[in-house]
Parts: sequence; structure tokens; C-alpha cells
Amino acid sequence: MSETGAASAAPADVTAELPIGRFTEMLSAQTSTPGGGGAAALSGAMAASLVSMVIAFTVGKKKYAEVESELRAHAAATEALRIELLGLADADVQAFVAVTATYGMPKETDEEKEARTAAMQVALKGAARIPFVTAERCLQVIERAEPVGAKGNPNVVSDAATAVYLAHAALLAAIANVNINLKSIKDEAFVEEWSAEVAKLLARATRATEVALDACSNTLGVAL
Amino acid sequence: MSETGAASAAPADVTAELPIGRFTEMLSAQTSTPGGGGAAALSGAMAASLVSMVIAFTVGKKKYAEVESELRAHAAATEALRIELLGLADADVQAFVAVTATYGMPKETDEEKEARTAAMQVALKGAARIPFVTAERCLQVIERAEPVGAKGNPNVVSDAATAVYLAHAALLAAIANVNINLKSIKDEAFVEEWSAEVAKLLARATRATEVALDACSNTLGVAL
Repeated sequence: MSETGAASAAPADVTAELPIGRFTEMLSAQTSTPGGGGAAALSGAMAASLVSMVIAFTVGKKKYAEVESELRAHAAATEALRIELLGLADADVQAFVAVTATYGMPKETDEEKEARTAAMQVALKGAARIPFVTAERCLQVIERAEPVGAKGNPNVVSDAATAVYLAHAALLAAIANVNINLKSIKDEAFVEEWSAEVAKLLARATRATEVALDACSNTLGVAL
Repeated sequence: MSETGAASAAPADVTAELPIGRFTEMLSAQTSTPGGGGAAALSGAMAASLVSMVIAFTVGKKKYAEVESELRAHAAATEALRIELLGLADADVQAFVAVTATYGMPKETDEEKEARTAAMQVALKGAARIPFVTAERCLQVIERAEPVGAKGNPNVVSDAATAVYLAHAALLAAIANVNINLKSIKDEAFVEEWSAEVAKLLARATRATEVALDACSNTLGVAL
């Protein structure tokens, strides 16, 4: 890659480096990337951050000494999830680019048509995988928010509740994107297998969200 | 304010100018701002952007000529909501700063104590108002997402669905912040009035979210 190319491509390629206002402008525009998959991943990243914040306000205080080591482990996990979810916003763009690249493949001969269709199917499977991983990571954020909501500093547990709301919404949005990609995939065994995985993930997410919101609600003394 | 102070304060004062990665780092840290209120407002801003994007992919095409002027009106509204929600992330920080400023007020004499408590109550009412406005704006995003989901370009209506998920989560998070602020407010008439407003808003939001997701689901042919 030329230096010029790298320099001009850098800001758009790394979502984390974009100013928030500029990102929302790009999201509003008539371009497919960034799109809903990226917005979902960023909401998930903000949710992971909020769980980290509740932990930061809890550890290092005598009152919470008993849960300190447990909470520190959760913070290490949510910090890793924050970084991974920011990366998934980029991966979503790349997966979309890979799909659209196949539209430009030659389709004159039967062989070319076959190769084009095959490449498109491979790219679509890749594009279905990214939002599935985003959804899995959002579930992990929710699962960490539950003990943090139960044991964290009550003064900031509302931020753990916000994390649960945002991560659950991001998960549902990501799963909608998985399902839309699955509609275009012709490999029936693949679709069946992934549909089953989606159903399992959704069931776990519903339960985890309920439990995490209950934990935050009890700590806060406010209905959620 | 000194030039030095202004220069160093500028990036943190305007959330829209912060790089996304940096914002999530600040969110993770042991500082109350930015917090869950800001994260909710930004998710709402992303949701508004996604509705604008679906409209951008729809207008200007013969196929959608009949709905063009209606959709252009929705786009003007969602663009205004995007900007307002970005501003609400800043307003959330300012409201918090106003509350904490009252903690530092003198409390030696009875008069001082009384003045401090009165100032704190005023600041808390202000702090309850900001997330309520955020929630109202998120509801407006959801209400715009419904006709856009029904009449927009089906290729991108999944982004309208993502908008609904994110805006609804942001609304619930914002309302949790309103309720937590209400707990500290001693003016019973104020609390009663606002609790009733919150209940009305939540009922409208539940209904609007259902209707908007149904519209998107019908257009996409995918369960949401």
C-alpha cells in the first residue's frame, strides 16, 4: 500500500479514531458503511465501558474489599470486550466490502457465473459471522453486568443498568443482521445450524438481561 | 477563562468532537462524566442517524416517488434529533457538574445549610430534566422509524430496526436516570408530576417500539 493510500484510508478504516459527531454524519449518509452493524458494535463497546466504570468506582475501597478480586477480574474482561467490540465495528465494514466485491466479478460464461455465486456465498457466510460474534460479546457484557450490578458501588449502579439496556439492544440489532444475511445463503445445513445457534443465544440473552436488571434494580431501589 | 484553560477543556466539553475510542476510555474511567446518560444520548444519536440513512437510500428513486416528500420531512426531523441528542450528551455532563458544585457550598450556619440544600434541590431538578428530554427525543426517533421502516428501501430497513432497538434502550436508560434523580428530590408535587410524565412516556414508547418493529419486520420478511 502506498503511503498516500494508507494516510487517506486510515481515519475511515479505524472506527475508534473517528470523532463521534463525524461518525454519526457518516452513519446518516447514503453509504452502506458504517451501518447498523457498526452502530450496534459501538453501543456494545459503550456498554462494556460502563461496566468497567462501575467497577472502577468500587475497587480500592475498604467497604468492598471482599469483592475486590472478583470485580477486578470482571473489569479485565469488560476492558477486553470494549476493545473487541470497537474492532467488530471495523470488521463489519470489511465483511460488507467483501460481499460487494463479489458483485463486480465477471459473469459472462457459466464458469464465471458459478465462481461468482460461490464467492458471493462465501462472503455472505463471513458477513453473517461478524454480527453473530458482536451479539455473543454483548451477551458477555450483560453477563458481567449482573454481578457488578449486585455487588458494585450503589452510587453508580445505574450505569450498569444502562450497560444492560444498551448491550441487549445491540445484541438484538446484531441478530437481526445475522438473520438477514442468512436469508441470502443457499447452504441449507449452514442456515439450519446458525438459526439454531441464534435461537440459543437469544434465549440466553433474554434470561441474562432479566437477571442483570433485577440485580441492578435491587441495588438501586428503583424499578427497571 | 484563561486561554490555557479553554484550550485544555475544549475537547472534553464537546462530546461530538471526541474520537470514539477515547470516549469509551473516558466512559470506563473512575470519573462520573461521561457516564450512562451520555452513552444513552449517543446511542439515541446513532439511532437518529440510521433512520436518516434509510431515507437517504430511498429518496431520489422513481420507485419511491410517491413517498419522497413524506420521507424528506422525516429526514429533516431525524437530522435535527441527531444534533440535539449529541448536545444532550454534553448537557448531561453540565447537569452533573451543577449538582456536584453544590456539594462544595459552605454548611457552617443554618442559613448556609438551608441555601446549600435549596441549591442542591434546584440542581437535582435540572439533572432529572436532561435524561427526560433525552428519552423524549429517543421516542421521537422511534416514531419516525415506523413510517420509514414501512415505506423505506427494503435493502436497508434492517438499519431502521437497529435504530428502534438502540433508541428504545437509550430511552429506558435515560428514564432510569430520571427515576434515580427523582429519589433525591424532596418536592413531592414535583416528584409526583414527573413520575406521571415518566409513566406516560414509557407507555407511549412500548407501543411505538412494537409498531415500528412490526413495520420493519413486515418490510424485511424477518422476525424482529
